[in-house]
Amino acid sequence: MLKLAKKLWPLNRSLTGQGNSETLKIIKNECNSLKLIKFKTGTKVFDWKIPNIWTIKEGWIKNKKKEKILDFKKNNLSVIGYSAKIYKIISAQNLKKKIYSIKKLPNAIPYVTSYYKKDWGFCMSYNKKKKIKDANYEIFINSKFKKGNLIIGEILIPGKTKKEILLSTYICHPSMANNEISGIVVTTFLAKWLLKKKNLKYTYRILFLPETIGSIAYLRKNYKYLKKNVIAGYNVTCVGDDRSYSYLPSRKGNTLADTLGQHVLKKYTKKYKKYSWLDRGSDERQYCSPGIDLPIASLMRTKYGEYKEYHTSLDKIGTVVTAKGLEGGFKILKKTLELLEKQIFPVSKTLCEPFLTKRKIYPTISKKNSVNNKLKLYLDILSYSDGKNSSFEISKKLNFSEKKIEKAILKLKKMKLIKIV
Amino acid sequence: MLKLAKKLWPLNRSLTGQGNSETLKIIKNECNSLKLIKFKTGTKVFDWKIPNIWTIKEGWIKNKKKEKILDFKKNNLSVIGYSAKIYKIISAQNLKKKIYSIKKLPNAIPYVTSYYKKDWGFCMSYNKKKKIKDANYEIFINSKFKKGNLIIGEILIPGKTKKEILLSTYICHPSMANNEISGIVVTTFLAKWLLKKKNLKYTYRILFLPETIGSIAYLRKNYKYLKKNVIAGYNVTCVGDDRSYSYLPSRKGNTLADTLGQHVLKKYTKKYKKYSWLDRGSDERQYCSPGIDLPIASLMRTKYGEYKEYHTSLDKIGTVVTAKGLEGGFKILKKTLELLEKQIFPVSKTLCEPFLTKRKIYPTISKKNSVNNKLKLYLDILSYSDGKNSSFEISKKLNFSEKKIEKAILKLKKMKLIKIV
Amino acid sequence: MLKLAKKLWPLNRSLTGQGNSETLKIIKNECNSLKLIKFKTGTKVFDWKIPNIWTIKEGWIKNKKKEKILDFKKNNLSVIGYSAKIYKIISAQNLKKKIYSIKKLPNAIPYVTSYYKKDWGFCMSYNKKKKIKDANYEIFINSKFKKGNLIIGEILIPGKTKKEILLSTYICHPSMANNEISGIVVTTFLAKWLLKKKNLKYTYRILFLPETIGSIAYLRKNYKYLKKNVIAGYNVTCVGDDRSYSYLPSRKGNTLADTLGQHVLKKYTKKYKKYSWLDRGSDERQYCSPGIDLPIASLMRTKYGEYKEYHTSLDKIGTVVTAKGLEGGFKILKKTLELLEKQIFPVSKTLCEPFLTKRKIYPTISKKNSVNNKLKLYLDILSYSDGKNSSFEISKKLNFSEKKIEKAILKLKKMKLIKIV
Repeated sequence: MLKLAKKLWPLNRSLTGQGNSETLKIIKNECNSLKLIKFKTGTKVFDWKIPNIWTIKEGWIKNKKKEKILDFKKNNLSVIGYSAKIYKIISAQNLKKKIYSIKKLPNAIPYVTSYYKKDWGFCMSYNKKKKIKDANYEIFINSKFKKGNLIIGEILIPGKTKKEILLSTYICHPSMANNEISGIVVTTFLAKWLLKKKNLKYTYRILFLPETIGSIAYLRKNYKYLKKNVIAGYNVTCVGDDRSYSYLPSRKGNTLADTLGQHVLKKYTKKYKKYSWLDRGSDERQYCSPGIDLPIASLMRTKYGEYKEYHTSLDKIGTVVTAKGLEGGFKILKKTLELLEKQIFPVSKTLCEPFLTKRKIYPTISKKNSVNNKLKLYLDILSYSDGKNSSFEISKKLNFSEKKIEKAILKLKKMKLIKIV
Repeated sequence: MLKLAKKLWPLNRSLTGQGNSETLKIIKNECNSLKLIKFKTGTKVFDWKIPNIWTIKEGWIKNKKKEKILDFKKNNLSVIGYSAKIYKIISAQNLKKKIYSIKKLPNAIPYVTSYYKKDWGFCMSYNKKKKIKDANYEIFINSKFKKGNLIIGEILIPGKTKKEILLSTYICHPSMANNEISGIVVTTFLAKWLLKKKNLKYTYRILFLPETIGSIAYLRKNYKYLKKNVIAGYNVTCVGDDRSYSYLPSRKGNTLADTLGQHVLKKYTKKYKKYSWLDRGSDERQYCSPGIDLPIASLMRTKYGEYKEYHTSLDKIGTVVTAKGLEGGFKILKKTLELLEKQIFPVSKTLCEPFLTKRKIYPTISKKNSVNNKLKLYLDILSYSDGKNSSFEISKKLNFSEKKIEKAILKLKKMKLIKIV
Repeated sequence: MLKLAKKLWPLNRSLTGQGNSETLKIIKNECNSLKLIKFKTGTKVFDWKIPNIWTIKEGWIKNKKKEKILDFKKNNLSVIGYSAKIYKIISAQNLKKKIYSIKKLPNAIPYVTSYYKKDWGFCMSYNKKKKIKDANYEIFINSKFKKGNLIIGEILIPGKTKKEILLSTYICHPSMANNEISGIVVTTFLAKWLLKKKNLKYTYRILFLPETIGSIAYLRKNYKYLKKNVIAGYNVTCVGDDRSYSYLPSRKGNTLADTLGQHVLKKYTKKYKKYSWLDRGSDERQYCSPGIDLPIASLMRTKYGEYKEYHTSLDKIGTVVTAKGLEGGFKILKKTLELLEKQIFPVSKTLCEPFLTKRKIYPTISKKNSVNNKLKLYLDILSYSDGKNSSFEISKKLNFSEKKIEKAILKLKKMKLIKIV
């Protein structure tokens, strides 16, 4: 995963543009089934409009000596996202007004965008900004806006049923590790792992899209189908550092995505932080919005906004995102998907108890205590097989591991005693 | 309010008759929009029948010396309500059988009626009754029954929506202060206050009617409409003494009328007594009855039946009902109506989050922590704007004052981001 | 009851056969309205098939001296249920493999069956089995299988309403006292008691059937009607010992059968043991199965499987089942049926409160405290008469005895103020 992360690192992702195309190309190299979905710029999606394509060739500030004291090519956070074209000789005083920095993190370049209003600006570390004292500077941002397409990557892995599980991650932040690349990497590896699995029960829909405008555009096109078929899903973000685990609920808070996600966090982590819906900040804002109401939660390592390197050049591979961090993020989601994939809603195929003697489960000789544990387990599961209890809920009722319940349900299915809805 | 109370004091109110007409005339002087609704005597209303009009000109008991030892003109509780005509010379012994008094309150004249069975009788203080020792007395009750109308006063204050809030008080007790006049006075002043308000959101329906038969007649005519449109309401009674505050729930106990009423009592009183539905005793008995099921609660000062002066001549202005008492009763209901009037059920006008940048709420420059508190508040409210959460409930969820939430919702409405249902 | 128990004791009951017919004949002697319902052998009932009739004439083991060391005629547990015919000279070693005994209960003959697989075998006490040492034994089981009918006994006691209460007990165990005969005896006496009652409100359906195959066959034919009409019911088993009381819930756990059953156990026993649905083991397995979902619970003395004599020859009248034990079992069920029979769901016949004066309940003279306790009770009941509250629930709300509430509801009905749904 770290290797893929490093490959993705230098690309200048934004809402649209070449960095996004290249990012999706790298994902497609990993998962050939990735498909591109295009939305024309200018298209209205709900209350929004797809913005124009932004391309930037260069961006720099030169001092009197013609030395570049800032260069977009060296760090793609140096120019604010969606910055307009500008060439100018500018006084130090005026230049400083257009440079963003963070006093409290004097070595960090902040991440700043101006997606929806034409503006321009630079981002620089506070320490560097302090040194701007010359009379005049030469600045140049060589960018342009054009018509084209916002591009979303979609992997659809069909299962036996149309009911599906949704994973969504975003591809719109340039070089930031935990709050961007970890999500792409973990989601790609989850897709690869799912693609290798045979006979998936559920259909998996895996989305790589620019945050907010991407999920809104995608929902505009698909929300009716998704409302009907998505049984659970997760927004994948901040899954690459090894400092903590976190859970952010869906708006409703008690969906299958919430129950199973928390169960896995309880089981596989020492502790995890539980946030509230009010702490949300990523695409669950759209997926769970009133009228959309998809069951989408977030299982994270350290949540966006909760670590100091967030949204700066310090959110790096190595210091923030580590191999161990990514593995933990991957593991939690994988375990949850495994548990989800196992979820079945059994329904007894016969009214009353089935005749188990002919299936050689019931002992032919009936005497005291002849109902052994295995038989008891089958009978208990059958008694809850009303199509409303999921296998996880049955395991809680019977106080047995999900594994045992799952195995028993599959055995019952094999014997044609239950069907799965 | 005390002035109005004193004006209403002497009138001989009953289920019907001149005292009621005069009472409604006084209210109309205060609120010109009061309309009279008439129900012909003899009309069947549900299980009941509107009784005939009762008028009484005089009522007295004279001793041997032709001295009036009881005179209806001096206290309109002296003759039992709906007493039939009688003139008689009667022995002390027989007379005593027809005189009601209360041994434990020897100076109180009790309030007694015989609405639905022809009877006659007098009410007198116990101390006075003890003195009846002469051989014979001359008694006269000059009353009569005739056809006519039971009259209900109704003030309808239209709001922007047909959804309405109901206030109901009764006009059937003669000279009693807390358990009659306080209700009329506070309700009249609430009507006056509402009439002065511009741009009311909800429609207000304010009723002055004889207890039981009045609310039954009114419901007979209007219950279908009311069931559809009343979102909350209060029966206004015993709101004039300054000894305590009380709450009596609606039959369901968890309606908006209950939640907001209790919230206001918690906020504005030191303590209040919480009664149960089983302690009910006024028109909520009809408004909340099975099949009617209106959301009507009671917010009171000292509840009927819970103070010693109740239903006697001791329930007076000055000793029981005071200016401070009335102000408290008025304030609690006013605060509750203000809170109700503020209640809105917002629904987001767009699926997904709206595009806030163009509304100049979302900062055009997006950087770390650029979602300020105000923007966060808007987004949080929008995320709960599903038409099921009232503004009060949203304020509880977000842990902000109702004022702040109300303001923000109105701002969102102004920006056409939500509509109100 | 003990007398009836003793009469039933010797009969060789099984799923089918003469012992069952004789048992039903004895019950018919007690309750002439018992009807026989027949299911042809070989008929498919849901997932099951009605087995053939099993008849056995003799069954013995003889030693070298031609002495019978086991004789079915002396104890009908000696041959396993549904044993096939066999005549053989057999070595002690081989014979022992076909003899069931219980080492821990060395004097008990176990109860063993092989209903659905052709097999043969004997049951003997462990102490007796130890003595089998001769070289060869002569064995004979003179049984046969034939076509015919599985027979169910049904007593239908019609009430005023089609809504019904179900009692079910089983008639398939041979000579065992608590885990068979106590159920038949108590159920028969409950039927006799119900048959004597006049004007029953609910219809009572009382079933005597072989466990599992009997209830499945009966449900196959009747489950749609039963789902529509059964409001509560009990599986009657293990109601004859005086050692404890037990409750086993229906699958849903909160039906009227559960609520009232537990209420009676709380009221009339010092303590009772509460089992879970997972501890089930009798016909509730069918009655409550998914898709059938009847509200059937079990009120027992010591539960099957929970006492050492269970399913052996030690489960006897006298030592296990006693007169006192049966009386306790009968009493608990009788009290519960009495309570159920009293259950009514009143609905007010008028909107708003009814006019009680003309019914002479409301005092014609209305004065302070003129609403007496009786009138208050009527008004309170009327206020809950919305068709959703049963009389038991109303008694809990008003904190009065069910008796008092029942009486008042009947009075209200007599006055045509409520109807019963």
